[in-house]
This record gives sequence, C-alpha cells and structure tokens, in this order.
Amino acid sequence: MKKVSIGIDIGGTNTAIGVVDREGKVLVKDSIKTPTHGNISLFIDDITNAVRELVSAVSALNPKIEILGLGIGAPNANYYTGNIEHAPNLSFKGVVPMVKLLEANFPDLKAIAITNDANAAAIGEMIYGGARGMKNFVIYTLGTGVGSGIVVNGDLVYGHDGFAGECGHTYIVPDGRLCGCGGKGHLEAYCSAPGMKRTAFELLAKYNAVNSPLAEKTFLELDSKMIFDAAEKGDMVALEVFELTGKWLGIGLANTVHHTSPEAIFLFGGPTAAGNYIFRPTIESMEHNLLPIFKNKVKVLPSQLKAGDAAIVGASALVYKELDKLLA
Amino acid sequence: MKKVSIGIDIGGTNTAIGVVDREGKVLVKDSIKTPTHGNISLFIDDITNAVRELVSAVSALNPKIEILGLGIGAPNANYYTGNIEHAPNLSFKGVVPMVKLLEANFPDLKAIAITNDANAAAIGEMIYGGARGMKNFVIYTLGTGVGSGIVVNGDLVYGHDGFAGECGHTYIVPDGRLCGCGGKGHLEAYCSAPGMKRTAFELLAKYNAVNSPLAEKTFLELDSKMIFDAAEKGDMVALEVFELTGKWLGIGLANTVHHTSPEAIFLFGGPTAAGNYIFRPTIESMEHNLLPIFKNKVKVLPSQLKAGDAAIVGASALVYKELDKLLA
Repeated sequence: MKKVSIGIDIGGTNTAIGVVDREGKVLVKDSIKTPTHGNISLFIDDITNAVRELVSAVSALNPKIEILGLGIGAPNANYYTGNIEHAPNLSFKGVVPMVKLLEANFPDLKAIAITNDANAAAIGEMIYGGARGMKNFVIYTLGTGVGSGIVVNGDLVYGHDGFAGECGHTYIVPDGRLCGCGGKGHLEAYCSAPGMKRTAFELLAKYNAVNSPLAEKTFLELDSKMIFDAAEKGDMVALEVFELTGKWLGIGLANTVHHTSPEAIFLFGGPTAAGNYIFRPTIESMEHNLLPIFKNKVKVLPSQLKAGDAAIVGASALVYKELDKLLA
Repeated sequence: MKKVSIGIDIGGTNTAIGVVDREGKVLVKDSIKTPTHGNISLFIDDITNAVRELVSAVSALNPKIEILGLGIGAPNANYYTGNIEHAPNLSFKGVVPMVKLLEANFPDLKAIAITNDANAAAIGEMIYGGARGMKNFVIYTLGTGVGSGIVVNGDLVYGHDGFAGECGHTYIVPDGRLCGCGGKGHLEAYCSAPGMKRTAFELLAKYNAVNSPLAEKTFLELDSKMIFDAAEKGDMVALEVFELTGKWLGIGLANTVHHTSPEAIFLFGGPTAAGNYIFRPTIESMEHNLLPIFKNKVKVLPSQLKAGDAAIVGASALVYKELDKLLA
C-alpha cells in the first residue's frame, strides 16, 4: 500500500486541496473557491466532493493507495478545538467547527486536524523538508503578513490557547509603523512583502530618488519582486530596502533565539526568493543581536518546501504528527 | 517514608544547599563559600560534605527520610550536558562536568540534574508554586539581571543547546542602553534592579529633580528598594521609574506571549515586592502590545516561591522532573 495524506489550504479567495505522498510530493490537486456566502455546510460539501474526486483520481492511478488522514491549514485555526475562530478574511462568522464537520463526512479517517498556515508550514518542513530530524527549529513565513511556527522538543508550540507562534507581531520599533493588527512597530509592518514596499517608499522620499526605477511605480503597484529586480540592476534604493529588511528581521530572529534557542530558523515566502539580498543582512543582524552563547550556532536557511505547493504540503503533514500521537 | 530532594544553588559568592520536602518547604539548609581558588575537586568535596551533614541532620529529625535526588541551579549551566560552561562569575574555568562529578559521590541517587537559576525557578513554580497544574507558562526573574524560564506542554524549553529562555536579552529599544552582555537596548538594561536605577538617574537629569529623595543617593548607592520607598512617599521620579519599567517589561512579556502563548507569566525577584507599582503598568503595557486574540487572556502573577529560599527550592524541584522522565 502507498500511504498518502490530504492537505487542504483554506485561503481568503481559494481553497487548495491535494493528495500528498510520504515524500511531500503532490500527486493530484485541485482548487475551489472559498465561498463568500458564509454558508459553512455548503463549503463542507464542496470540500468533501473535491476530496472524493481527488481520491478517485489518485486511486485510478494507483489502486493500492491508503488515505491516512486530512490536514487543514486555515487562518485563525485552533489546533486544540479543531475550530476556525473569528477569521476576519473568511465569510464564516464566529466559531466554525471544521474538524468536527469534516469528521462527520470522513468517519473512516483516523487523523483530521487543523492549524494556521505558518504552523502547517513548520510541520511540513519537519515531515518533508529541511527540518527533518530536527527537534528544535522555527519557521518564519514572509508574505502579505509574517507568520511563524515554533517547534520545541519535536512538537509544535500551540501554547495555552492554540494560537502560539505569532512572531510577526513582536515589537521591533517603538511607536513605529502601523501594523495590520492595529498595533505599532511590529515585525510584520517591516518584514512582510508590503513592509518592504513601505520601506521603499520611505527611502524614495528620504533620498528624493527620482532616478530609481521604483520611482515609476505607485504605492498600489509596487511589490517585492520589483524591488528584487531593481536590486539586481544595482538600484541603491532597492539594495537598501533589503539591508533594512534584513536588519529588522534579524532583530526578530534574535528575539526568537533568546526564547527557544532553535537549531535552525527557516525562512519561507516570496521575499526569500531574493536569496542573499535578504539572507546576508538578516544573518548579520541576528548575529549582532545575539548573546555570545548563541553566536554562530543558529542556522538561517531557506525553506525546502516548494512555494506553489507548500500550503497543501504543510497541511498534509499535520496528519503524520496526529498519527504519531495516536501511537504514543 | 517522607520523600525529599536536595537543592543546591551555586552563586558567585555563596552556594546554598537545602533539603526540601514535596510541598517546597526547606527542612534544613546550609551555605558554603563558592570558592575563588578555581579547584573544582575541592568544591565538589565541600558540597558533598555539606550535603551529607544536612542529610544526617534531617534524618536525625525524621528517620524515615528518603532522598530522591539532587538538583543544582548555577550560572551557565547546561541541562543537556550536566556541565557548567564558561561561567564568567565563577572561578572554575572552561567546562565543568558538575553532574558527573556529583554522581560519582552520590551513586545511589537516581536523579541528579543541573540548569540555570531562572529555569530552576520555573520548575520550582511548577512543582511547588503558583504554576501547579499549568502546562504552558513563563517566569521572568528580575534581579541584578533578568532571567526567564519557559514551560511548553509541561516541559521546560531548553532548546537545541540547553540555553533557551534568555528573554532578558530580547530587544526593547533600538540602539538603547548598553546591556551587561555587551548588546544594546536589551530588556535587562531596563527592567533589572540596576536598570531601574539607570531609569531613575535619567529622570533626575531630565527633570533636574533636586527635591526628589533619590537625588541624595549616588549611582553606587541607589537600589530598587529605595525607589520603592520613594514611590510610597509620592515621589514623582520614583513613580515614573515604575511606569517606565512596567512599559518596557510589558513589551517584553507581549513578545513572549506572541512566541509561546502561555496561560500565565510569573514575575519573581526584588522589584516585584513593589506590587502594583510594577504589576499595573506592566500588565497595561503588555495588553496594549498584544494581538487581539491574546488580550485579557494571559495572567501576570507574582511568583509564589519565597524570596529567601527560592533558589534552593527551585533547584530541588528539578529532581521531580527527572524522576518523571525516568518513569515515562
């Protein structure tokens, strides 16, 4: 029997579903709209149908498939309760018992679990990626926001309430930039893709940089890929954006090291495609801000999850952690 | 049989040793000089003799005593290796295999373990104090420095290298005050007892506060008790010291909540004797800096370990965690 698990990534616009093998390879996948009608039963039906079709498709390719379980990544997902709780970007209001609803439709599956996407990425990295064999590591996911997943003694840190690992909202700059959460000076306001854009606009203003290619873009247009392209052409504004982003991110990573002393910190997401433009200043800043006992010990590594499939793959990895717990 | 454990607290000047019962009560205790001669064998002999005398004394009081093990709190102690590693304030240089050396003298004891004093305080709080029954909590120890111990899923977070939980060296103020570790802007430089003194001196200078009772003290003389006494008399400088200390400490606690989402954070040490002078602004600042999902959830509580015996008691608690692991 070939054992596989199913990963479901619920985003604000789309919900991606895939069947993933033990090596983290997506065998088949599909995407459905995350509905805006707010009717959770209809959405559960849509997911159930899509899962059944994918299972049929993969069973047709290989009749000896065994489905181990379902893992779900979703905003404001609470691992302990199995609920999505008050997710601001989803049409389902209040507390939605996702795991319970899916268990009713898939009674034969032993492991159905949910967590947020950054925690799912951490488990994906541990089961399939660069953190295989590591017991203490952290992942920072850099995108529209900054998420994080923290692993201690081989287990994800969920905390008392199920919501641990919000390092994007640690404090970097006193009374600094407004964060999406309403706070000020948080890491996410500096090191997310929109944070990099904000830095670029501050630098354009600071230097009156009319010759920068970034000066040709509106605030709505500019993205982190354009900043990378400009850096590649030697644009001083773009290069400084990476320096500053790395400086701030390194402070955040040092704060995390002072909490949990991980073996490695993985960086995931669009801005990490810039490679050493972002990794070098990040590592320099982290090392600068570490206690001597931690210096030159903590690896800062690119995630080994493939960008396109990472959310599905991460969610599917939850299943293996659940099965481990059932066996323990 | 009455089961007890032995706690040893190795400080820069003195080493305190006590026999502690399961309720965290110190039955007998002694203190020896932490030697400055750098000869570890002589120090191990001193500890061994003191332990044997205490055991004789306690056995004379109650012949049905069973010694479960030895727990040691020491600077730069590594739980994983059992070593004290490069402790700057001890005369023993390099790597000292404390656990191994004590095991040789106490072959009958099943559990001998070492960690740093803040981690020992966390375990003490869990075994005997206010964190009994809690699986996810944190302790901050405010004294000459700021230490911390983090508990996740009922276990202390030691991290990859054994040195996790150095929240005193997280980053609060960019390019801020010089920290004892050589870094800048760390929590410890603001929220330790000397940090409070530094704040007082800044405020004396800022307001030219010649009428403050604190103006009568030299930088060498002023301590956090004097600041508390002045606050009690309504001194505006002293009152603002507590407001600012709480503001900074609350930022640090919020950063910790965003990492591990604890049920409670305990505060331990001299400055916490000031009660609501320090707790109220700390809690206000923490709440202000928390994501909405964490607001009004995390308790900030005074440690229930008695100040005088806390180091011995905390160290002795290590024994119960070790025995749990042997049984698991």
